[in-house]
Amino acid sequence: MASLSKFVLLGMLSVVILGTGHVAFHLYTAFSQNEHVGVLQLVGRNQAAFNDFQNVANTTTDFNAITDADIYLIAVNDDAISPVSKHLENKKGIVAHTSGSIAIDALHAVQRPAVFYPLQTFSKKRAISYHDIPLCLETKYKEDMPVLRELAATMSENLHLISSEQRKRLHLAAVFTNNFTNHLYIIGKRLCEEKNLSFDLLRPLIAETAEKIKLLEPELAQTGPAKRADRNVLALQVSQLNDNHQKRIYQTISQSILALYEKKL
Amino acid sequence: MASLSKFVLLGMLSVVILGTGHVAFHLYTAFSQNEHVGVLQLVGRNQAAFNDFQNVANTTTDFNAITDADIYLIAVNDDAISPVSKHLENKKGIVAHTSGSIAIDALHAVQRPAVFYPLQTFSKKRAISYHDIPLCLETKYKEDMPVLRELAATMSENLHLISSEQRKRLHLAAVFTNNFTNHLYIIGKRLCEEKNLSFDLLRPLIAETAEKIKLLEPELAQTGPAKRADRNVLALQVSQLNDNHQKRIYQTISQSILALYEKKL
Repeated sequence: MASLSKFVLLGMLSVVILGTGHVAFHLYTAFSQNEHVGVLQLVGRNQAAFNDFQNVANTTTDFNAITDADIYLIAVNDDAISPVSKHLENKKGIVAHTSGSIAIDALHAVQRPAVFYPLQTFSKKRAISYHDIPLCLETKYKEDMPVLRELAATMSENLHLISSEQRKRLHLAAVFTNNFTNHLYIIGKRLCEEKNLSFDLLRPLIAETAEKIKLLEPELAQTGPAKRADRNVLALQVSQLNDNHQKRIYQTISQSILALYEKKL
Repeated sequence: MASLSKFVLLGMLSVVILGTGHVAFHLYTAFSQNEHVGVLQLVGRNQAAFNDFQNVANTTTDFNAITDADIYLIAVNDDAISPVSKHLENKKGIVAHTSGSIAIDALHAVQRPAVFYPLQTFSKKRAISYHDIPLCLETKYKEDMPVLRELAATMSENLHLISSEQRKRLHLAAVFTNNFTNHLYIIGKRLCEEKNLSFDLLRPLIAETAEKIKLLEPELAQTGPAKRADRNVLALQVSQLNDNHQKRIYQTISQSILALYEKKL
C-alpha cells in the first residue's frame, strides 16, 4: 500500500463534491488548499448556497451534468444520500458518502461505493485545523482503499479503516460527547442567567474539563457529589432545579455515575 | 478600593492554608510562587499528605497550633468546614472557605467570615494556569473585601463578587458542565471500546466541542438528531444501546433538546 500511495501522490486526484452544507464546505476548503487534489466541480440544489465557497471554478445545480472525476464525495443530508447517489450510477470513479450513520450499502446503485467520514463537528463560520481530524474510511472493494486513503492523507494524518457497523457506533458515541455535552453547556448557561451570572464564569471550567482528558482517562477525571455518593448534596441540588427536563437529566446522570462507581467498590 | 488595593500590594499578605487536598494544593502552588503572598503554614490532619507540597516552611497536624495570619483559607471537605472553622474563632484575620456549595454562614464561629471559591476543576497531577480562573469572592463585612480581593488578584485576573446564593447556583451549573460532561466522555469511551474502537477517535471531537463555545454561544453550536427533531434516527440510536443507564440518559437529554428547539419554532 505504501508504494501505491506514493504512486498516486505523484499525480493529482480529481474530486467532485455534492452538497453545500458544513461538511461540504470544510471538505472543499481542505482540498482546495492542496496541490495534489483538484476539486473539479461543486454540485448543489440551489445556486445561492455556492456563495459561501471561495474561488470555485465550476458549480452546477444540474445533477445530470456532473463532471467525470476520480472520487465523488456526497456530503448531503442522510436521507438524500441514496437518491443523490443514483445520479452517479454510470460514473467510473469512487463514490463516497460522508455520513456517520448511513451504511455503505446505501450506495448500492454506484459502481465503487465508499465512505469518507470525518469525525468532527463543523460550522461554516469556524475555521478548524484539518490535520488531526479522524477520517473513517471504508470501501466496498479492497483495491479502492489505497486511492481513498491517498485523498484522505492530503487532509489529515489521522486515518482509520472503519466498518459500517463501527461507524454507526462512533456516530452514537459522538452524539453523547458532542451533542449531549453541548446541551449540558446550554443548561449551565441558563442556570447562570437565572441568577444574573454570566456564562463566562463557566467557560474556563468547560475548557479545562475537555483539556484534562486529552491526557487523562475520563474515569480518572470524574469528580462531584455522585462520584462521592454524597446523597445529601444530590438531594439538595435536585431541589434547586425548577425545570423538569433539567431535574430529570440531573437524576438520570447522577444515577448512572452512582452505579458506575458503586460497582467498583 | 483601587487605592486600598495599591496600599496592600506594597506590603505582603500572610496566609495559612487548612487542608491538603486538590484545592489546597493548587492554592498553595499559586501563592507560593508570588512575592506578595507569604504562606506561613499548612494545616492538615495527617503528616503524609504534606509530602505532595513542595518547599513548605511550616506544617502542623495540630489544629490548636495555628499561626496568626492576615487570611486563613479553609480547603477541606464541605462537611468539615464548620468544625475546622471553630479552631479559628479567636483569630483576628479573615477566614475564608473555598467551597462552591457551602454558605458563608457556616463560618459563624469566626470573627471575619469570607469565601474564596475558585471555579475550576483541579487534580494534583495536572498543572494549570491560574490567571484566568474565576475567583468568586464574598465577605461578611464590606471592609474585608479589599483585602480578600488583593489576595485573589495575586492569583487571577478573573475576580467576581458572588453571593452565597449565586455561588450555590454556580456550583450546580458546574456539576452539569464538568461532572456530567465528564460522565458523557466515559459513556463515549465505553461505546467505542465495545466495538474495538479507540477512545482516541473521539478526542479531537471532544476538544473541538469545548473549543467551539469559547466564542460561540452553546445554543448556536447545538447539532444532532434531537436538534433536527429527527425521530427516526433517535429511535434507531436508542435501540443500539444495551445499558439501561445509557438508554435513559439518551432519552432524557434528547427530550430536553427536543423541547428546547420545539419551543422556538
